[in-house]
Amino acid sequence: MLDWIARKRNGENLAEGEIRDLVQSYTRGDIPDYQMSAWLMAVYLRGMDKGETLALTRSMVESGLRLDLSELGCPRADKHSTGGVGDKTSLVLAPLVAAAGVAVPMISGRNLGFTGGTLDKLEAIPGFRVGLSIQEFREVLETVGCAIAGQTEELAPADRKIYALRDATATIECVPLIVASILSKKLAEDLNALVLDVKVGNGAFMTSLDAASELAQNLVEVADSFGTRTRALLTDMSQPLGFAVGNTLEVVEAIETLKGAGPADFRELCESLAVQMLILASPRMTPLEAQGKISTLLASGQALQRFGQMVEAQGGNPRIIDRYDLLPHSPHRHVVTSRQRGYLFAVDTRSIGFASMNLGAGRTNLSDRVDPSAGLMIHKKTGDWIETGEPLCTIYCGRDDQLAAVMIQAKNAFQIGERKAEATPLVRRIIESQPAAKRAQGA
Amino acid sequence: MLDWIARKRNGENLAEGEIRDLVQSYTRGDIPDYQMSAWLMAVYLRGMDKGETLALTRSMVESGLRLDLSELGCPRADKHSTGGVGDKTSLVLAPLVAAAGVAVPMISGRNLGFTGGTLDKLEAIPGFRVGLSIQEFREVLETVGCAIAGQTEELAPADRKIYALRDATATIECVPLIVASILSKKLAEDLNALVLDVKVGNGAFMTSLDAASELAQNLVEVADSFGTRTRALLTDMSQPLGFAVGNTLEVVEAIETLKGAGPADFRELCESLAVQMLILASPRMTPLEAQGKISTLLASGQALQRFGQMVEAQGGNPRIIDRYDLLPHSPHRHVVTSRQRGYLFAVDTRSIGFASMNLGAGRTNLSDRVDPSAGLMIHKKTGDWIETGEPLCTIYCGRDDQLAAVMIQAKNAFQIGERKAEATPLVRRIIESQPAAKRAQGA
Repeated sequence: MLDWIARKRNGENLAEGEIRDLVQSYTRGDIPDYQMSAWLMAVYLRGMDKGETLALTRSMVESGLRLDLSELGCPRADKHSTGGVGDKTSLVLAPLVAAAGVAVPMISGRNLGFTGGTLDKLEAIPGFRVGLSIQEFREVLETVGCAIAGQTEELAPADRKIYALRDATATIECVPLIVASILSKKLAEDLNALVLDVKVGNGAFMTSLDAASELAQNLVEVADSFGTRTRALLTDMSQPLGFAVGNTLEVVEAIETLKGAGPADFRELCESLAVQMLILASPRMTPLEAQGKISTLLASGQALQRFGQMVEAQGGNPRIIDRYDLLPHSPHRHVVTSRQRGYLFAVDTRSIGFASMNLGAGRTNLSDRVDPSAGLMIHKKTGDWIETGEPLCTIYCGRDDQLAAVMIQAKNAFQIGERKAEATPLVRRIIESQPAAKRAQGA
Repeated sequence: MLDWIARKRNGENLAEGEIRDLVQSYTRGDIPDYQMSAWLMAVYLRGMDKGETLALTRSMVESGLRLDLSELGCPRADKHSTGGVGDKTSLVLAPLVAAAGVAVPMISGRNLGFTGGTLDKLEAIPGFRVGLSIQEFREVLETVGCAIAGQTEELAPADRKIYALRDATATIECVPLIVASILSKKLAEDLNALVLDVKVGNGAFMTSLDAASELAQNLVEVADSFGTRTRALLTDMSQPLGFAVGNTLEVVEAIETLKGAGPADFRELCESLAVQMLILASPRMTPLEAQGKISTLLASGQALQRFGQMVEAQGGNPRIIDRYDLLPHSPHRHVVTSRQRGYLFAVDTRSIGFASMNLGAGRTNLSDRVDPSAGLMIHKKTGDWIETGEPLCTIYCGRDDQLAAVMIQAKNAFQIGERKAEATPLVRRIIESQPAAKRAQGA
């Protein structure tokens, strides 16, 4: 191990077999944390080339069980998002794509810092269980065509152990380590297609388009090397997605979208990601066909019905689809109004995310309980005209110890000025691997 | 701690108070090893400025007891060497400088890799105890004027803990960390003067003059900031110092030198270092006066007598001074002869160091027992003419399992050619802190 640390420290590359030995030994407990963390810091500062990133990803996949979903008899696709504010996309995508005949075995996560987590959102539904065993996960998938659950002990245990250490040693924000961590879980899902939603902007971990593109390029190339058709969408996270931020609020917004309504930006993102999942999973389908199918599934209520089936199969009450009053609601609402008139030219999205967390929608400590009813409804989008005294957002909370501070935090997050800001497109760039792009050009 | 790791990772500087908190918390056990090792790797790759190095050194000194030797009523000086092959200088310097009226409270170390250790050499003397308590150390110092002992639990405990972690995480070779480690122990000795012997060449940890100069400059400036008059000598380690390599062999060579004999290069180094120790400890003394005093003390036998007193005070048998047969001697000797004729133009000194270790003079594992009788006597110096079949060195060993391999290793270490190599001066450069150099110019 000392040699592996020293060589990475010196900027040298490790061979595939060495990286495999390292990951295996660490996962078994034969390499102590203090050596692994020195190595991780060396990787952070010296980087890894593509071969090393591939080897690390492969070793982390192989540290655990790999699902075999070939018995489903249909292609499998999944989506991974790097995390944002108001991002309830998975709740719509999984049933929508499943209704189109592509299975979605989705292993998802919890809130992290200022970003929300799909599992926390689903747990706002009374009875919904995200802690499925592999067997249960497989059964829901066979019955419904989609399932959303938390990471189990069996899948990529190396990633769990390494991620916890990175979190404690300031080695999170490192492209090859992020790539291996994200993909080790996704590649264990036995996918044919993977769509990555790499968020860019002040409500994402990556604030620059270049940094996000670099991450996306690496993710796509590594995933593609494993034979999983992969594409990344760089999407805007310079304001909350949709209007709802907070668990119950987001579940309602997702259901509204499955009913064919919902906020325009959120609906657009769901459709764009669903199109990519379908055409990657079924290479003969054209984007136009995929778009047509998606519109039909949303308009006909088939996607919504699939969502209800998933909720029921995972122990939740499917009646919430038509009775939002069965979801936990907060007793208090507080409207935040504008001090001035003008155009909304920017939203401090990260601040909105932290405000939601401070209300109890997220965790400050791992042991904190989440309040599913807490959150914010945003009333304005960038470019909107605002009159003095007009509502900017409504705060939902069950406790009011943080309320005064959060109201100020929320008010300050809206930047109002005289000029109308130029609109940012929602999908800023689509990234596919070089060979795939070349094949497309040759065709 | 996470913030300290992240900022150092980003190349930022930490404030003095932050470094003190970090060292204190780690020493107390409040910061886990895995966070400390990530921080150390960030320091390794991002460096530390002079202020940070000073703060780290100060925190490590303050982690333990600082001796107060003012009661001795005389100036105190010490020497530190960065480690070499055949370097038995401390055995001569301590009694020599003590005989000149300057106390030498020397905390020393054991062999490390291919380099020998002063404590291992002294332990070749029957009965000699290097594990003195602080009280015993002080008593020997008061009685004899010099004492050589190992690091105790009380002195710079932060250094012990951090050094062990660096050793296990490939973060040893890092100038600010080396500076803090060396000086934290020396500055706890309550010195007026410190001379650093920074070895350069293929038998030293630093093989380039530039790298050694950088380390020396940093050491001198930091030590000087603590009010300890400090100078560094960059000295040649491109061949073993003197002729003897191995514990008993080196004790004999040191005693011979104290008797006024001994190899020319070794005697020259002892005298150069002793002159520096005396003029730094007694600023009114000129180099010429110091040289005169040293010559007298060696010629008169007073330095030798002081050595005998120290041996006796530390439990050793002082009769070894005249009866080398009381030292452990190896039963077997094997002469390595030259395959060719020509000038000795280079010695692979590191290889000679490892050969000695392989014979049992050093440790491969911390738990190994050292064989005091094992080692090599070198018969030729760089530039000497060698005939085919002439002895290059003699191997002393108690076991012969490694013998054949070591004989080849030793033979290959001598590089013989047609041209006589240019001689390298023994003292290659003297480095003092900038302010001291300026004061000297102004005087």
